[in-house]
Amino acid sequence: MHQTFDAAIGINLLHANQAGADHNRDHFDTWGITCLNLMSSPGAGKTVLLERTLAALSPELKLAVIEGDMTTELDAERLRQYGVPVIAINTGRSCHLDSKMVAGGIHSLERDYTPSTFDLVFVENVGNLVCPAEFEVGEHAKVALLSVTEGEDKPLKYPLMFREADCLLVTKLDLAPYLDIDLHRIERNIRQMNPHATIILLSAKTGEGLDDWLNWVRSAVASQVKRAPCQPAPQG
Amino acid sequence: MHQTFDAAIGINLLHANQAGADHNRDHFDTWGITCLNLMSSPGAGKTVLLERTLAALSPELKLAVIEGDMTTELDAERLRQYGVPVIAINTGRSCHLDSKMVAGGIHSLERDYTPSTFDLVFVENVGNLVCPAEFEVGEHAKVALLSVTEGEDKPLKYPLMFREADCLLVTKLDLAPYLDIDLHRIERNIRQMNPHATIILLSAKTGEGLDDWLNWVRSAVASQVKRAPCQPAPQG
Repeated sequence: MHQTFDAAIGINLLHANQAGADHNRDHFDTWGITCLNLMSSPGAGKTVLLERTLAALSPELKLAVIEGDMTTELDAERLRQYGVPVIAINTGRSCHLDSKMVAGGIHSLERDYTPSTFDLVFVENVGNLVCPAEFEVGEHAKVALLSVTEGEDKPLKYPLMFREADCLLVTKLDLAPYLDIDLHRIERNIRQMNPHATIILLSAKTGEGLDDWLNWVRSAVASQVKRAPCQPAPQG
Repeated sequence: MHQTFDAAIGINLLHANQAGADHNRDHFDTWGITCLNLMSSPGAGKTVLLERTLAALSPELKLAVIEGDMTTELDAERLRQYGVPVIAINTGRSCHLDSKMVAGGIHSLERDYTPSTFDLVFVENVGNLVCPAEFEVGEHAKVALLSVTEGEDKPLKYPLMFREADCLLVTKLDLAPYLDIDLHRIERNIRQMNPHATIILLSAKTGEGLDDWLNWVRSAVASQVKRAPCQPAPQG
């Protein structure tokens, strides 16, 4: 449930969400946890990427996942097979995770585990290239996925997601040979929206680019990337 | 801009949108226009399907498009090459078209053309598998697209879109041989959400299934499918 807001109400809403996100981040910082927020369209490959990532990193890092889905625990069940705690949040009719929902996930982590033993928490957001980009949840960095099957123009058409991301993953690279697509144009369009983010082209199926992603995650954990609390963007 | 609402405000909001949608539909009915609302994730193939559809049907039907995008007129420009009026609506930060925005498109149609000469207006919604499903815009039928690259589980994970649709198109069929995907399972999952909708598997690239889609559109125009004004679904 959501609506088109007038600017004043919208800004109040984002301020309230931001305060909750800052509070969540304080928890993560206190426990020495890095939190990464994964966002994309439905079916861009967030869950399969997490499967590969949990398999590769769980021997060296203590991991957990906060898994957002409107309904079902299908993704949470897939990820639990990797032996890491997965806290499922059903958002119901909501099209994104907000900081209050993620706070609920953090409280579950606190109740059932010893949070300070964790190194890294992945938040897998609801599949939606629009709404999750507006709602910080307490992450230290945002990761956006765009599959090659979605087309070259998406960074221009959904600018906020591509501006907000710290790391942009172009996924399903194995399908590129079967598409009329120019990978350089995708990169140029991403760069037009976001000159500084890390861009990694990868295929979870063939493993191409996966090491670059895993190294980016390792360095995010090592440097405990801190995002400065930010103001909601002006309306208009 | 959008938020998680309490039930009372949410229902008021949907009532207001529904009243606007009924008003838009009255306009379409007066003019003898059939209106179809196309919805899907970003990159599922709405625009390329419209390109094929305009090319095939413009010799026999008088067509127009109301094109919703957050920013840019990229899709509108693609569709204008087919010689039909395309009214572009930039939704800004809004993640869906609502009935008020589409009313603006209808007024443009009224100002610049003779609406009663049109047979069919396509509304191409913002790429989003969640939010557009909640907001009627005055359409006579809803068409939802799911590309085979998005995965078999999406009808279960995004139930409202699949419940609401009158016609469900499984797109990019040409890519199925390169994916670990069971087309029968996609159909079963759609049927679980929606036992009665028309399901068509197609590829805009190879043309497979396209005739079935065009015939469905022709019969929608011929029968002037009327959707009964409906109440917003209960919150919960």
